[in-house]
Amino acid sequence: MDHRSQCPIAVSLDLLGDRWTLVLIRDLLNGKSKFSEFLQSPERISTNILTDRLGKMEASGLVTRSRYQERPRRYQFELTEMGRGLHPVLCEICRWGNRFFPDTWTPPDSFMQTQNEEA
Amino acid sequence: MDHRSQCPIAVSLDLLGDRWTLVLIRDLLNGKSKFSEFLQSPERISTNILTDRLGKMEASGLVTRSRYQERPRRYQFELTEMGRGLHPVLCEICRWGNRFFPDTWTPPDSFMQTQNEEA
Repeated sequence: MDHRSQCPIAVSLDLLGDRWTLVLIRDLLNGKSKFSEFLQSPERISTNILTDRLGKMEASGLVTRSRYQERPRRYQFELTEMGRGLHPVLCEICRWGNRFFPDTWTPPDSFMQTQNEEA
Repeated sequence: MDHRSQCPIAVSLDLLGDRWTLVLIRDLLNGKSKFSEFLQSPERISTNILTDRLGKMEASGLVTRSRYQERPRRYQFELTEMGRGLHPVLCEICRWGNRFFPDTWTPPDSFMQTQNEEA
Protein backbone atom coordinates (compact mmCIF):
# COMPACT_ATOMS: atom_id res chain seq x y z
CA MET A 1 0.00 0.00 0.00
CA ASP A 2 1.16 3.49 -0.76
CA HIS A 3 1.22 5.51 2.43
CA ARG A 4 0.92 9.27 2.87
CA SER A 5 4.00 9.42 5.07
CA GLN A 6 6.00 7.12 7.32
CA CYS A 7 4.25 8.44 10.42
CA PRO A 8 2.79 5.42 12.25
CA ILE A 9 -0.42 7.36 12.92
CA ALA A 10 -0.94 8.29 9.26
CA VAL A 11 -0.04 4.77 8.07
CA SER A 12 -2.40 3.19 10.61
CA LEU A 13 -5.23 5.51 9.60
CA ASP A 14 -4.75 4.50 5.98
CA LEU A 15 -6.16 1.15 7.16
CA LEU A 16 -8.32 2.16 10.12
CA GLY A 17 -9.46 5.69 9.38
CA ASP A 18 -13.16 5.34 8.81
CA ARG A 19 -16.29 5.01 10.96
CA TRP A 20 -16.64 1.24 10.66
CA THR A 21 -13.38 -0.68 10.62
CA LEU A 22 -12.71 -0.44 14.36
CA VAL A 23 -16.37 -1.21 15.12
CA LEU A 24 -15.95 -4.45 13.17
CA ILE A 25 -12.66 -5.17 14.97
CA ARG A 26 -14.63 -4.74 18.21
CA ASP A 27 -17.21 -7.29 17.03
CA LEU A 28 -14.51 -9.75 15.95
CA LEU A 29 -12.72 -9.40 19.31
CA ASN A 30 -16.06 -10.16 20.93
CA GLY A 31 -16.40 -13.41 19.01
CA LYS A 32 -18.48 -12.46 15.98
CA SER A 33 -17.34 -13.94 12.69
CA LYS A 34 -20.27 -14.10 10.28
CA PHE A 35 -21.86 -11.56 8.01
CA SER A 36 -25.25 -11.95 9.70
CA GLU A 37 -23.67 -11.39 13.12
CA PHE A 38 -22.07 -8.08 12.09
CA LEU A 39 -25.39 -6.95 10.63
CA GLN A 40 -27.07 -7.48 13.99
CA SER A 41 -24.82 -5.06 15.88
CA PRO A 42 -26.64 -2.00 17.19
CA GLU A 43 -24.89 0.38 14.78
CA ARG A 44 -26.81 -1.20 11.89
CA ILE A 45 -24.12 -1.32 9.25
CA SER A 46 -25.53 -1.72 5.75
CA THR A 47 -24.71 -4.85 3.74
CA ASN A 48 -22.81 -2.98 1.03
CA ILE A 49 -20.63 -1.08 3.50
CA LEU A 50 -20.04 -4.31 5.43
CA THR A 51 -18.96 -6.12 2.25
CA ASP A 52 -16.68 -3.26 1.31
CA ARG A 53 -15.05 -2.99 4.73
CA LEU A 54 -14.50 -6.72 5.22
CA GLY A 55 -12.90 -6.88 1.77
CA LYS A 56 -10.57 -4.00 2.60
CA MET A 57 -9.76 -5.48 6.00
CA GLU A 58 -8.83 -8.77 4.35
CA ALA A 59 -6.70 -6.97 1.76
CA SER A 60 -4.85 -5.05 4.43
CA GLY A 61 -4.22 -8.13 6.55
CA LEU A 62 -6.50 -7.41 9.50
CA VAL A 63 -8.73 -10.46 8.94
CA THR A 64 -8.69 -13.75 7.12
CA ARG A 65 -11.72 -15.19 5.35
CA SER A 66 -12.78 -18.83 5.10
CA ARG A 67 -15.77 -20.51 3.49
CA TYR A 68 -18.06 -22.31 5.88
CA GLN A 69 -21.00 -23.05 3.56
CA GLU A 70 -21.17 -23.93 -0.12
CA ARG A 71 -24.75 -23.27 -1.26
CA PRO A 72 -25.11 -20.40 -0.96
CA ARG A 73 -21.48 -19.57 -0.41
CA ARG A 74 -20.92 -18.06 2.98
CA TYR A 75 -17.72 -16.90 4.60
CA GLN A 76 -16.57 -16.30 8.11
CA PHE A 77 -13.92 -13.88 9.22
CA GLU A 78 -11.20 -14.16 11.82
CA LEU A 79 -8.76 -11.61 13.16
CA THR A 80 -5.12 -11.99 12.26
CA GLU A 81 -2.39 -11.22 14.79
CA MET A 82 -2.35 -7.74 13.28
CA GLY A 83 -6.09 -7.37 13.84
CA ARG A 84 -5.95 -8.71 17.41
CA GLY A 85 -3.09 -6.30 18.06
CA LEU A 86 -5.61 -3.45 17.89
CA HIS A 87 -7.12 -4.40 21.23
CA PRO A 88 -5.05 -1.85 23.22
CA VAL A 89 -6.09 0.86 20.75
CA LEU A 90 -9.76 -0.02 21.28
CA CYS A 91 -9.32 0.02 25.06
CA GLU A 92 -7.90 3.56 24.94
CA ILE A 93 -10.72 4.67 22.66
CA CYS A 94 -13.21 3.21 25.16
CA ARG A 95 -11.57 5.09 28.03
CA TRP A 96 -11.69 8.32 26.06
CA GLY A 97 -15.28 7.75 24.96
CA ASN A 98 -16.43 6.90 28.48
CA ARG A 99 -14.68 9.98 29.85
CA PHE A 100 -16.07 12.54 27.44
CA PHE A 101 -19.41 10.90 26.60
CA PRO A 102 -20.80 9.84 29.97
CA ASP A 103 -23.85 8.24 28.35
CA THR A 104 -21.76 5.61 26.62
CA TRP A 105 -21.69 2.01 27.81
CA THR A 106 -18.88 0.96 30.10
CA PRO A 107 -17.24 -2.07 28.50
CA PRO A 108 -17.15 -5.23 30.62
CA ASP A 109 -13.94 -5.86 32.55
CA SER A 110 -13.45 -8.94 30.39
CA PHE A 111 -12.99 -6.66 27.38
CA MET A 112 -10.81 -4.08 29.09
CA GLN A 113 -8.52 -6.52 30.89
CA THR A 114 -8.06 -9.63 28.78
CA GLN A 115 -6.45 -10.05 25.38
CA ASN A 116 -4.15 -7.12 26.06
CA GLU A 117 -0.95 -9.03 25.46
CA GLU A 118 -2.47 -11.96 23.67
CA ALA A 119 -1.74 -10.88 20.15
CA MET B 1 -24.82 14.80 17.96
CA ASP B 2 -26.86 11.78 17.07
CA HIS B 3 -24.83 8.64 17.67
CA ARG B 4 -25.17 5.21 16.05
CA SER B 5 -25.18 3.47 19.42
CA GLN B 6 -23.99 4.08 22.95
CA CYS B 7 -20.84 2.04 22.39
CA PRO B 8 -17.88 4.25 23.31
CA ILE B 9 -16.00 3.01 20.23
CA ALA B 10 -18.82 3.85 17.83
CA VAL B 11 -19.44 7.22 19.49
CA SER B 12 -15.75 8.09 19.39
CA LEU B 13 -15.49 7.14 15.72
CA ASP B 14 -18.42 9.43 14.94
CA LEU B 15 -15.89 12.21 15.74
CA LEU B 16 -12.56 10.59 14.91
CA GLY B 17 -13.33 8.05 12.20
CA ASP B 18 -11.61 9.44 9.14
CA ARG B 19 -8.09 9.54 7.75
CA TRP B 20 -7.25 13.07 8.92
CA THR B 21 -8.68 14.03 12.30
CA LEU B 22 -6.13 12.10 14.38
CA VAL B 23 -3.29 13.29 12.13
CA LEU B 24 -4.33 16.87 12.95
CA ILE B 25 -4.59 15.99 16.66
CA ARG B 26 -1.00 14.70 16.35
CA ASP B 27 0.10 18.03 14.84
CA LEU B 28 -1.71 20.01 17.54
CA LEU B 29 -0.13 17.89 20.29
CA ASN B 30 3.22 18.65 18.66
CA GLY B 31 2.62 22.39 18.92
CA LYS B 32 1.16 23.30 15.54
CA SER B 33 -1.75 25.72 15.62
CA LYS B 34 -1.99 27.54 12.29
CA PHE B 35 -3.48 26.62 8.95
CA SER B 36 -0.13 27.05 7.18
CA GLU B 37 1.56 24.75 9.69
CA PHE B 38 -0.91 21.93 9.15
CA LEU B 39 -0.48 22.28 5.38
CA GLN B 40 3.27 21.74 5.75
CA SER B 41 2.93 18.31 7.36
CA PRO B 42 4.30 15.49 5.22
CA GLU B 43 0.85 14.01 4.54
CA ARG B 44 0.00 17.05 2.41
CA ILE B 45 -3.57 17.64 3.45
CA SER B 46 -5.47 19.78 0.95
CA THR B 47 -6.81 23.17 2.02
CA ASN B 48 -10.45 22.22 1.54
CA ILE B 49 -10.15 19.02 3.58
CA LEU B 50 -8.22 20.92 6.25
CA THR B 51 -10.93 23.59 6.45
CA ASP B 52 -13.62 20.94 6.66
CA ARG B 53 -11.87 18.88 9.35
CA LEU B 54 -10.95 21.84 11.56
CA GLY B 55 -14.54 23.04 11.37
CA LYS B 56 -15.86 19.64 12.38
CA MET B 57 -13.27 19.33 15.14
CA GLU B 58 -14.33 22.70 16.51
CA ALA B 59 -18.01 21.72 16.31
CA SER B 60 -17.37 18.48 18.17
CA GLY B 61 -15.35 20.16 20.89
CA LEU B 62 -11.88 18.82 20.09
CA VAL B 63 -10.38 22.25 19.34
CA THR B 64 -11.09 25.89 19.94
CA ARG B 65 -10.46 28.59 17.36
CA SER B 66 -9.21 32.13 17.92
CA ARG B 67 -8.40 34.94 15.52
CA TYR B 68 -4.80 36.08 15.49
CA GLN B 69 -4.82 38.37 12.47
CA GLU B 70 -7.45 40.73 11.08
CA ARG B 71 -6.49 41.45 7.45
CA PRO B 72 -6.72 38.89 6.09
CA ARG B 73 -8.52 37.09 8.87
CA ARG B 74 -6.50 34.21 10.19
CA TYR B 75 -7.28 31.77 12.98
CA GLN B 76 -5.27 29.53 15.18
CA PHE B 77 -6.45 26.32 16.77
CA GLU B 78 -5.85 24.86 20.18
CA LEU B 79 -6.73 21.49 21.65
CA THR B 80 -9.40 21.37 24.31
CA GLU B 81 -9.10 19.01 27.27
CA MET B 82 -11.14 16.58 25.18
CA GLY B 83 -8.67 16.88 22.31
CA ARG B 84 -5.61 16.53 24.54
CA GLY B 85 -7.25 13.49 26.09
CA LEU B 86 -6.63 11.63 22.83
CA HIS B 87 -2.91 11.43 23.50
CA PRO B 88 -3.07 7.86 24.96
CA VAL B 89 -5.09 6.75 21.91
CA LEU B 90 -2.40 8.15 19.60
CA CYS B 91 0.35 6.43 21.60
CA GLU B 92 -1.35 3.05 21.19
CA ILE B 93 -1.84 3.67 17.48
CA CYS B 94 1.88 4.48 17.22
CA ARG B 95 2.80 1.24 19.00
CA TRP B 96 0.56 -0.74 16.69
CA GLY B 97 1.84 1.05 13.59
CA ASN B 98 5.48 0.59 14.58
CA ARG B 99 4.87 -3.09 15.30
CA PHE B 100 3.15 -4.01 12.06
CA PHE B 101 4.74 -1.47 9.72
CA PRO B 102 8.44 -1.61 10.54
CA ASP B 103 9.25 1.17 8.07
CA THR B 104 7.30 3.74 10.07
CA TRP B 105 9.03 6.38 12.16
CA THR B 106 9.51 5.69 15.83
CA PRO B 107 8.01 8.65 17.69
CA PRO B 108 10.38 10.52 20.01
CA ASP B 109 10.25 9.54 23.67
CA SER B 110 8.98 13.04 24.38
CA PHE B 111 5.81 12.19 22.48
CA MET B 112 5.33 8.69 23.89
CA GLN B 113 6.04 9.56 27.52
CA THR B 114 4.87 13.08 28.22
CA GLN B 115 1.36 14.50 28.20
CA ASN B 116 -0.07 11.14 29.12
CA GLU B 117 -1.87 12.32 32.20
CA GLU B 118 -1.80 16.00 31.42
CA ALA B 119 -5.27 16.31 30.00
